[in-house]
Amino acid sequence: MNYYAGLDLGGTFVKGGIVDEQGRILIKDKIPTGKERPYKEIAADMAQLVEDLAQRAGINKDDVKAVGIGSPGTIDSEHGVIVYSNNISWEKVPLCSAIKDQLGLPVFITNDANAAALGENFCGAGKLYSSMVFITLGTGVGGGIVIDGKIFEGNRSAGAEIGHEVIRFGGEKCTCGRRGCFEAYASATALIRQTQAAMRKNPESGLWKICPSIDDVDGKTAFDGMRAGDKTAEKVVKNYIRYLAEGVANLINVFRPQAIVLGGGVCAEGENLLVPLRRKVSRLVYGGMKYAPVKIVTASLGNDAGLCGAARLAMLKTL
Amino acid sequence: MNYYAGLDLGGTFVKGGIVDEQGRILIKDKIPTGKERPYKEIAADMAQLVEDLAQRAGINKDDVKAVGIGSPGTIDSEHGVIVYSNNISWEKVPLCSAIKDQLGLPVFITNDANAAALGENFCGAGKLYSSMVFITLGTGVGGGIVIDGKIFEGNRSAGAEIGHEVIRFGGEKCTCGRRGCFEAYASATALIRQTQAAMRKNPESGLWKICPSIDDVDGKTAFDGMRAGDKTAEKVVKNYIRYLAEGVANLINVFRPQAIVLGGGVCAEGENLLVPLRRKVSRLVYGGMKYAPVKIVTASLGNDAGLCGAARLAMLKTL
Repeated sequence: MNYYAGLDLGGTFVKGGIVDEQGRILIKDKIPTGKERPYKEIAADMAQLVEDLAQRAGINKDDVKAVGIGSPGTIDSEHGVIVYSNNISWEKVPLCSAIKDQLGLPVFITNDANAAALGENFCGAGKLYSSMVFITLGTGVGGGIVIDGKIFEGNRSAGAEIGHEVIRFGGEKCTCGRRGCFEAYASATALIRQTQAAMRKNPESGLWKICPSIDDVDGKTAFDGMRAGDKTAEKVVKNYIRYLAEGVANLINVFRPQAIVLGGGVCAEGENLLVPLRRKVSRLVYGGMKYAPVKIVTASLGNDAGLCGAARLAMLKTL
Repeated sequence: MNYYAGLDLGGTFVKGGIVDEQGRILIKDKIPTGKERPYKEIAADMAQLVEDLAQRAGINKDDVKAVGIGSPGTIDSEHGVIVYSNNISWEKVPLCSAIKDQLGLPVFITNDANAAALGENFCGAGKLYSSMVFITLGTGVGGGIVIDGKIFEGNRSAGAEIGHEVIRFGGEKCTCGRRGCFEAYASATALIRQTQAAMRKNPESGLWKICPSIDDVDGKTAFDGMRAGDKTAEKVVKNYIRYLAEGVANLINVFRPQAIVLGGGVCAEGENLLVPLRRKVSRLVYGGMKYAPVKIVTASLGNDAGLCGAARLAMLKTL
């Protein structure tokens, strides 16, 4: 049996796991990143984590064939280098070779959103589909594109910035500097802003009962208000889904994947989100959904997606 | 030497050519499509055209290794079937097998826009780039996506509808039924509409001198007006390029190709279009253009792009 190590590098923790060829996690654990330290120390800890996990799982070290990493930031996956990471304050860090030197195993890296996409494709909500677009609705809108079971990253891994397509010319300012990006309308941050704006405009809304302090509004508030029968909340949710549907339909029209997999906090709403979204998207998609249907589902792996996908990357690269 | 036949099927003519492995066209010609006839007759003519061209070029029939077709409509390239073509009024036509039966050669098919993209990638403006997005600015906005030298079509060839991404939520009605599509702002049709609207609003504009009858406005009118120093025309061109830049930047952010190749009548403007477009796009692209630059160029093969690309398709499929 061959095994693969997956590492999910974050600003606070490094999560690691040993995954088999069927995508089963044999063991997983996490260690603090200690991100203020020199990168070589962090790399040494990551290598040590792989060794410890293999040992604790009772796996012969030789049966671990390769290591994959999901990392935040701009990644040059071809050369195994973190070009720039705002999150860990790294620039041009050759992380793969540092870990490889210690373990003597092939080490591969991709962006954390790509790793999560690959994880969902390997053993999560997207496992039935050879092509899918993974969209995370969190602080921003990120994601990954899987074509023929592989990550599509664009030249120098600089593509797949799916949150940064303008859907509303001249619209809301986005963190990227443009106006009207998908992210500026469909992220959890955007939903919170939309909820707060509706509350300010409607002092009579029941949303004020659900959330008396406007600073406490989160991605759930509007959905909670809608469930409680508040009209303002219902309108916020409806508009949010409308924007989300436009962005999803745009991605379908260019990639026509077999599935769209949605991740991030907003997805906890499940069918409350999916049912109206599917209805709207099917009306917007070019030529309709009959000829080449696209499933729209929510992610299923949660926090394990990154390490599963990182292990999958290692597997794909050494098969 | 191996040779490949490329066929570019249109509503009026079928263009055909014999192309070598370096992308040189040895011979080309065209025959009337006669689109009202049963498809088998058209297929027989297409097969005959390949045989005639090979003979006239003095090529041994055995040295023609395969045939490629670029066709309008929705194409199931995997099964060699034209699923639906508005242009030739076809539905579920197994064109590849009909031609194959007569020639005894492998026959492959793709959408005409994909074929043109592949042609430009093989021996035209995109030949230096392994990944490119080809965008035609014509009656609509069509195109093709080349990744690693191959056409990316999406599931059942239903993707790459790059004209149908919404860039302006709730904006101009598009032929596809949505509002605010890239096509509704960046096609030649859209530019004509924008020019006409500006003329109606500005009866004093010099555009009326260039084009006294508003029905004669074409994709050149606004550019001509700008060159003549008319302020209204300048504004029309500026706005048009602004929209074009948004759509191009969207495509760059998701695909991050090495090049964007622009085709269609509007591109005759050359550097008048490209210089301001490049400037605008570079400001809109995620993370800027330094790390993974994208060349923006105009297509160079004109009407030969389709048959070159069809031949290239045949070559890629039989290599």
